[in-house]
Amino acid sequence: MRGFRDRTDLAHALALLDTRLSPLGPETVAAAEAHGRVLAAEIRSEAAVPAFDRAAMDGYALRAQETFGAGAYSPVELSIVGESMPARPFSGEVRPGQAVRIMTGAPMPAGADAVLPAEAAEETNNILRVTEAIPPLRHVGRRGEDVSVGQVALPAGRVLRPQDLGLLASIGAAHIAVVRRPGVSILVNGDELLPAGSRPDGFRIVDSNSPMLAALVRRDGGMLHQIKLIPDQRAAIREAMLQSRGEALLIAGGSSVGREDHTPSLLAELGELPVHGLALRPASPTGIGFLKERVVFLLPGNPVSCLCAYDLLAGRAVRRLGGRSADMPYRKLKLPLAEKIVSAVGRVDYVRVKVTQGRVEPIAVSGASLLSTTTAADGFVLVPCDLEGYRPCEEVDVYLYDDDG
Amino acid sequence: MRGFRDRTDLAHALALLDTRLSPLGPETVAAAEAHGRVLAAEIRSEAAVPAFDRAAMDGYALRAQETFGAGAYSPVELSIVGESMPARPFSGEVRPGQAVRIMTGAPMPAGADAVLPAEAAEETNNILRVTEAIPPLRHVGRRGEDVSVGQVALPAGRVLRPQDLGLLASIGAAHIAVVRRPGVSILVNGDELLPAGSRPDGFRIVDSNSPMLAALVRRDGGMLHQIKLIPDQRAAIREAMLQSRGEALLIAGGSSVGREDHTPSLLAELGELPVHGLALRPASPTGIGFLKERVVFLLPGNPVSCLCAYDLLAGRAVRRLGGRSADMPYRKLKLPLAEKIVSAVGRVDYVRVKVTQGRVEPIAVSGASLLSTTTAADGFVLVPCDLEGYRPCEEVDVYLYDDDG
Repeated sequence: MRGFRDRTDLAHALALLDTRLSPLGPETVAAAEAHGRVLAAEIRSEAAVPAFDRAAMDGYALRAQETFGAGAYSPVELSIVGESMPARPFSGEVRPGQAVRIMTGAPMPAGADAVLPAEAAEETNNILRVTEAIPPLRHVGRRGEDVSVGQVALPAGRVLRPQDLGLLASIGAAHIAVVRRPGVSILVNGDELLPAGSRPDGFRIVDSNSPMLAALVRRDGGMLHQIKLIPDQRAAIREAMLQSRGEALLIAGGSSVGREDHTPSLLAELGELPVHGLALRPASPTGIGFLKERVVFLLPGNPVSCLCAYDLLAGRAVRRLGGRSADMPYRKLKLPLAEKIVSAVGRVDYVRVKVTQGRVEPIAVSGASLLSTTTAADGFVLVPCDLEGYRPCEEVDVYLYDDDG
Repeated sequence: MRGFRDRTDLAHALALLDTRLSPLGPETVAAAEAHGRVLAAEIRSEAAVPAFDRAAMDGYALRAQETFGAGAYSPVELSIVGESMPARPFSGEVRPGQAVRIMTGAPMPAGADAVLPAEAAEETNNILRVTEAIPPLRHVGRRGEDVSVGQVALPAGRVLRPQDLGLLASIGAAHIAVVRRPGVSILVNGDELLPAGSRPDGFRIVDSNSPMLAALVRRDGGMLHQIKLIPDQRAAIREAMLQSRGEALLIAGGSSVGREDHTPSLLAELGELPVHGLALRPASPTGIGFLKERVVFLLPGNPVSCLCAYDLLAGRAVRRLGGRSADMPYRKLKLPLAEKIVSAVGRVDYVRVKVTQGRVEPIAVSGASLLSTTTAADGFVLVPCDLEGYRPCEEVDVYLYDDDG
């Protein structure tokens, strides 16, 4: 039983992840199902949208120059020779003295170069009385004005928006290449743990880390391969580590330097463990390593520490492997502190806070085992390692747990 | 062919939705799968977490008063009589002169009231030399300090966070009551439309609205019942409207006042259509009505108008029915305008903008058919109906399309 000899700076651990990890390769998916996925390559359009000149209003397709000089007291008369509807175009040509009824979205007939809005004319027995002059191209949507042939419709790395799926549909991109979702295995170890969904029983407590981690992994675009509870037995942990699948392995519990903390020495033996022990409160018993091309995080079993270590480190790996921004997906606000925060030079502090009337109140600095501090909090503040804390009224960055916070 | 006679104010339409719609009833789901769901009722804990006093550090459980006066030059000797491990507690009692090895999370043995950290003592042949005085309760996590019996662990209406799933697991809440997800049917009408996934072909264009709407509905917590393309035939539209399922029906296309716009008159005939025509650019051809207890949105077929009408109105209904905040789920920033925006008093304008170096550049006010304006934009600005626009440098609210924008 002893503490960590040295603790790695958070910045060093982040740099290690950024150096060692890069986005996975592509896979092909249906564009309509790709909301929130990350484009593996830019999308160039093979089609023009629209593919033809079309009416942007309901009205009459005509030759604009014939309306020049038209007005309420000098109407111009044209004869209506047909109509153009969406997908049912006028088959002939609009000749001088002629007009064609046209609906929004319908193809412009040959010969016509403008659309007169229905309100600017009167129609009687197929004779149109035009009472307004319009210039050529008025109310005409030109071929390719939305997307032209060969244009980059969406760039590589794009996290697809709902409207991007619409654009992809309109250019006929049925299947697209997106960055593969990182596969993640979660192991939880501790003899005292009952699986999530159980009732706490005597001296046995219920595993709260795996349901939390599973939701976090999915939020960050990862794909869950397995969740497994394992006893505090070296052989069992070793076996589970070797059999885990995917690009990332998260092991919660047993990550420190105690007698029953098997995972650090196992990882060092089976793979490599370049980081063990972080200058980060409350997640100092965190390890980062690699096992057969798989990034491995040894996360503290205390749930607040586990959340903190996931968001700052393991989540960064999941996001990076998936081609996403490495930053935490929390809304960040700059707000003044209602009270001071005391920290220590040399470590980063993860401080749970409430935001009340635009001011930030620290509610918990310690209490790594109290998950309720993270459900009662609106978010958290990170005190950088070169500061002793923050003064009252100082403006700090607050990361908000909720999107609508 | 004529325009709308009157256009309803956006504020009136929003008030109508807020008055007529309220959250759906509850359903029971597995807590571990409930990330992002909305709690239908508060959760009171039936368990204390932890259920027993426990060690918050690796060290030695002892009677604190026996350490009083201990120091490097005046060590106190205690005999080690056993150990307490998680789920394997020490079965006896710690009597005066005794101590028990204890691991983080392990139950405190009877008689002991504090944990001496491993670093503050030396152990030789089951004799502990204590070199530091500690007060009672030091490094002891008390029963119920995370959650106490009967405490409200999470309030009704909570959108569940990852850590909430952890807390629910720890109190043994395996199944919970959440607000039912609103079921949504999507109908798209237009003879010119090919289903999403097709290639544009001649004068036929590909439906871009349904993949966009499907992603928006899912984003807002709705559950998609069906997506159906229907031709511009009154009987077919009528049949599809009557056969639609769920709590909300979105019909894209044919929502205006043209000859082929069947949905408004059909809805007025089959149900009610209190709103048709909005003082909102580019989504003025929008209708809101009700059909057999189902809220119905007639959305413009132009995709930018469709997106705008969904986000402001249909999405508000989906969010409200699902027990969520009615506000649009976009991050909102206050930033200065790089250029003026021209609007007109009496209508709300949905202006697509880019944010460059902290300044807001309008890129499209009109162009309802150009979906690429919403993929090129970073977000949008709403110009309220009582303003003629905004001056350059004026600070405006920008809604960002991307979460990480």
